[in-house]
Amino acid sequence: MNSIIHIDWNTGRLFGPQVQHSEKKLKELAHIFHDQTAFSALPGDDVIYRVDSFKPVTAGTEGGLFWGTTFLEPGKVGDEYFMTAGHFHHVRNRAEYYAVIEGEGALLLMDESGKTHAEAMQKGSINYIPGYMAHRAVNTGNVPLVFVASWPSDAGYDYETIAHDGFSALMVERDGKPALIERSRA
Amino acid sequence: MNSIIHIDWNTGRLFGPQVQHSEKKLKELAHIFHDQTAFSALPGDDVIYRVDSFKPVTAGTEGGLFWGTTFLEPGKVGDEYFMTAGHFHHVRNRAEYYAVIEGEGALLLMDESGKTHAEAMQKGSINYIPGYMAHRAVNTGNVPLVFVASWPSDAGYDYETIAHDGFSALMVERDGKPALIERSRA
Repeated sequence: MNSIIHIDWNTGRLFGPQVQHSEKKLKELAHIFHDQTAFSALPGDDVIYRVDSFKPVTAGTEGGLFWGTTFLEPGKVGDEYFMTAGHFHHVRNRAEYYAVIEGEGALLLMDESGKTHAEAMQKGSINYIPGYMAHRAVNTGNVPLVFVASWPSDAGYDYETIAHDGFSALMVERDGKPALIERSRA
Repeated sequence: MNSIIHIDWNTGRLFGPQVQHSEKKLKELAHIFHDQTAFSALPGDDVIYRVDSFKPVTAGTEGGLFWGTTFLEPGKVGDEYFMTAGHFHHVRNRAEYYAVIEGEGALLLMDESGKTHAEAMQKGSINYIPGYMAHRAVNTGNVPLVFVASWPSDAGYDYETIAHDGFSALMVERDGKPALIERSRA
């Protein structure tokens, strides 16, 4: 059937002819980390995260839904934890779910005024990302952070706003623990 | 946090102050089974399915998403397997995901012209329910069929069309196996 895929609930991996695979290498994420010196010392070809995705309808279809699993590696650039690029939805009011299969981390949520807060992500947490919020996952643990996501097929992605201004806060290691700090203090 | 709940991936159960619990008893499902004599002989207070649901925004909110887990008991009314009431979405183009945690069954999908087909549901299957399709889960196994779902918060529910006309096909036991038959031949 066109409309069925399979998931291994232990690993989060998706299987089926319609499943798409993508990956993001460190060198593609240059702009998001605050410590450019530390960034330059790391191998740019390292894969920071992979995504298995299932898009049963064309992007832009109103009323449809997409499904994906993200595998975010553990690690840091300087004192800043590995994280996803992050984005607003192009259609701003579109929400999304993240549901954690394995690992621990944080979900950074920034509203349109630039105010950022963090929510815990841990095995079994189902984080609701409301509309109008830029969202980014951060791996603060020692194993891959694996989470499934479901989001509207007409949400679209606005990476530009984030690429230009970034998030207003960063998740960094302080005294061996994750801490959310204002970008201006990093 | 208002926007976080937790799931036990082994059982599908949802936890958190915002989680709502509902149940459907056999007597509330009288109209959906074809064998009314067999129905009358069964205890009407038996719970056929339970739903844990998470609705972080008001029903009707455009762009939002709901999440739920359904626990559908095994059993039959005569030769017809236990199943959910089934519905179209009130906003017809709204899609939905069913992702199976445990058990085995079938997803009945009926289009607006009354044509019904069935897809397999088994542990790890992620079934995409396109817009414009009435949907109903059927437990054809010996253990509860447990699946998580994600759907738009403005989808709404149209149970009326199904209550009046039913699905055009039934999932019944034939020679010890599930078979989809036209209602007119039941």
